[in-house]
Amino acid sequence: MKKTDILIIGGGPAGMVAAGTSRQYYGNKKVTVIKSNEKSLVPCGIPYVFGPLLDSVEDNMVPCGGKAAKMGVDLLIDTVESIDFDSKTATCDGIGSIQYDKLIIATGSIPRKPVEIENFDAKGVFYVPKDADYISKVYDALKELKTIAVIGTGFIGVELAGELARTGKRVHLVGSRLLKHAFDPEFSEDMEAQMLHENVEFHKNKRAVSIKIDTDGRACGITLMDNETIDCDAVIMATGYMANTELAKKAGLSMRQHSTIYVDEYMRTTQEDVFAIGDCAEKRHFITKRGVPIMLASTATAEARVAAANLYRINVVKSFSGTIDIFSTVIAETCFASAGITEEDAQKENIDAISTTVIVDDKHPAKLPGNHKQTVRLVAMKSSGIVIGAQVIGGIDVGEMINILGVIIEKKMSVYDLLNLQVATHPLLTSAPTSYPIVQAAQNIAATQISC
Amino acid sequence: MKKTDILIIGGGPAGMVAAGTSRQYYGNKKVTVIKSNEKSLVPCGIPYVFGPLLDSVEDNMVPCGGKAAKMGVDLLIDTVESIDFDSKTATCDGIGSIQYDKLIIATGSIPRKPVEIENFDAKGVFYVPKDADYISKVYDALKELKTIAVIGTGFIGVELAGELARTGKRVHLVGSRLLKHAFDPEFSEDMEAQMLHENVEFHKNKRAVSIKIDTDGRACGITLMDNETIDCDAVIMATGYMANTELAKKAGLSMRQHSTIYVDEYMRTTQEDVFAIGDCAEKRHFITKRGVPIMLASTATAEARVAAANLYRINVVKSFSGTIDIFSTVIAETCFASAGITEEDAQKENIDAISTTVIVDDKHPAKLPGNHKQTVRLVAMKSSGIVIGAQVIGGIDVGEMINILGVIIEKKMSVYDLLNLQVATHPLLTSAPTSYPIVQAAQNIAATQISC
Repeated sequence: MKKTDILIIGGGPAGMVAAGTSRQYYGNKKVTVIKSNEKSLVPCGIPYVFGPLLDSVEDNMVPCGGKAAKMGVDLLIDTVESIDFDSKTATCDGIGSIQYDKLIIATGSIPRKPVEIENFDAKGVFYVPKDADYISKVYDALKELKTIAVIGTGFIGVELAGELARTGKRVHLVGSRLLKHAFDPEFSEDMEAQMLHENVEFHKNKRAVSIKIDTDGRACGITLMDNETIDCDAVIMATGYMANTELAKKAGLSMRQHSTIYVDEYMRTTQEDVFAIGDCAEKRHFITKRGVPIMLASTATAEARVAAANLYRINVVKSFSGTIDIFSTVIAETCFASAGITEEDAQKENIDAISTTVIVDDKHPAKLPGNHKQTVRLVAMKSSGIVIGAQVIGGIDVGEMINILGVIIEKKMSVYDLLNLQVATHPLLTSAPTSYPIVQAAQNIAATQISC
Repeated sequence: MKKTDILIIGGGPAGMVAAGTSRQYYGNKKVTVIKSNEKSLVPCGIPYVFGPLLDSVEDNMVPCGGKAAKMGVDLLIDTVESIDFDSKTATCDGIGSIQYDKLIIATGSIPRKPVEIENFDAKGVFYVPKDADYISKVYDALKELKTIAVIGTGFIGVELAGELARTGKRVHLVGSRLLKHAFDPEFSEDMEAQMLHENVEFHKNKRAVSIKIDTDGRACGITLMDNETIDCDAVIMATGYMANTELAKKAGLSMRQHSTIYVDEYMRTTQEDVFAIGDCAEKRHFITKRGVPIMLASTATAEARVAAANLYRINVVKSFSGTIDIFSTVIAETCFASAGITEEDAQKENIDAISTTVIVDDKHPAKLPGNHKQTVRLVAMKSSGIVIGAQVIGGIDVGEMINILGVIIEKKMSVYDLLNLQVATHPLLTSAPTSYPIVQAAQNIAATQISC
């Protein structure tokens, strides 16, 4: 029987980072990754395969084999059929059984199929799995088509709709207001205004009831809840993902909300020497403490680093307060980012929150070329002033600005801590020091609490 | 006699932010700002006046009058000649005396004149004060000149040299390695390579001994320490700044290193009801705890917010650990940023530090257009892993990335805290989640401490 010290099931971002990190901390251990497909995609890059920025699906590939070799990791292309915890073995389709000392399950997530929509699985209806071969097929299938309907207004739906439109296709986007789980309504409206410039028709707050099929059984349109119909040449279902945990369930691991695998602070499951990381592992929300289906490669890789570091011994006492939902994206030429809870969700969760929004120029003086408006919303606890959420709109630096706000939330900093935050400002790179928006927003909230 | 509640001497970034913040917290108080010049420049924008990005000095002006009116602040254009703490009055050139209840001194800094260089004040030798009228004159004087020598390789010298070169002038830059107080030698070398692409001749590690003058007494060249001479049409002295504290000294305030005014955590001087903020106020370094001449608008405005908030009552207990030197700039098309201490300075200060440098792509996949290399160096305490410095090279998002690192330093986070930092990543905006460089650098340091 094959043997390894550390066995990792899954070769997505979580699996590969766990492998590299294991090698870095435990250089004398043999690390094996089993993944089902030789090719790997950059998951968040998938929408950009369909637009003008990348030339092909190949451009969005991760050279997994080379990477594994470089890290000194064994890579097996196979599918794990079952795990037996007593004998510490995983049994695969091809190679048979392999014995492990430590096991990391990183099986990720798969598209949720909206069974409530009639003909959800008809020909010409496509999903967006993180599967290179499937995505290549979708790419080829869409190439010559003119009108595409995208169902779902989360990140994948919105990004895909935008990219398809930029290649000149007509796109129908069906769903609730854009990115509603990450942004407050005004921010969604701003996105919707940006989207209008493109070749996109947005069917806002409409729900698809069925996929219309032609005589060949091929998708040719959508029927909405109000009987309105949309004609199209293909449908893309961007209707979310679910944890890929059939294998773990079958093996007998304890499960949590959203069919995720229970894990503790060190990413340990209920089973000795078995860890779970990434989309398949339980997430608790940093603010609400509820189980939430936050599925992000950044979260997954953070978990991978924790699991791998602590496989054989606890190195750093971990006090994890939960997962922060932290996102960024680009719509047309404008960048949007969010961290933590929105004001709307804070209200729903009955959190006594206060918010403020500041708009500044992101260069100073504003006459410098390339100046954008930069909008920062802070959401804070009313009593303590602790920052629990933030949303930003602006230029490309928004991608890192949200990570400042991520650290602020993670470190439970209050608006009072931010009043004299020490930041670098530069004419060509940031807003003016006199109006740096994170500080200005903090001051606006502080002033409502302590002014006289 | 004129009377005001809050009197602010100085209308630079610190003075104006103190004014606005005072109004925000104490809406019923009368706030008066006295400044010597009707016009105000964006201080860090001055170099860009001389390049192709801005059309004139006017483009870099702050509309102080309008801003003051909008904030409900009285703006007086005058020069304060003396302050009498007993009668709580300031006496001005024009308006005579004005009585205050609270006084904030924000007199900023003025160029240091290098008296060690012969003819340092000859005709055709220009300085870079934050003075709109003077800068306008320099602008006009340089317009038709072909060859300019810039002495000094701090931020102002380097930025000015680059901008002048971009307008087609020949520039001689004289000084030590570039930005040596903010960056380690390898980073300076990278900057120097970038500078080479421009119309700049860099006289590295050369010291100017005298300014050569023609028969009219006008600068026409520089003699260096090794008797080498450089011909030029004008000289710009970018030889640093000193606190502008003659007024404060004369009034009898207690002074500290570098002729700065002593202040406590709330920016109070030794005199009841008198505060000092910005370049004229004492700074202690966050890491070394030494008195340091850190002169940054971002630092100044942070101090302004603290002083103004606590003028009449202490709102937030302040535990200030010192000033972090945090900078960003652009050389040619590449952005450089630094926060905290460099590895070189850590060694000089006998700090037991460890550092690592990570280079990644700032988009993912790297084939996306606009991809830059991104270099992140972390400097951490060897024992605790606490991050004490960081340097970054890359694209425009470096301007905000350094502010993530600023918060990390300010919150005394260790590399162990960063191992699973929760960040947002996006193909078009950041490096891949699998290699996010702050996290990867932290892991590299952690692994040297705890691997087996």
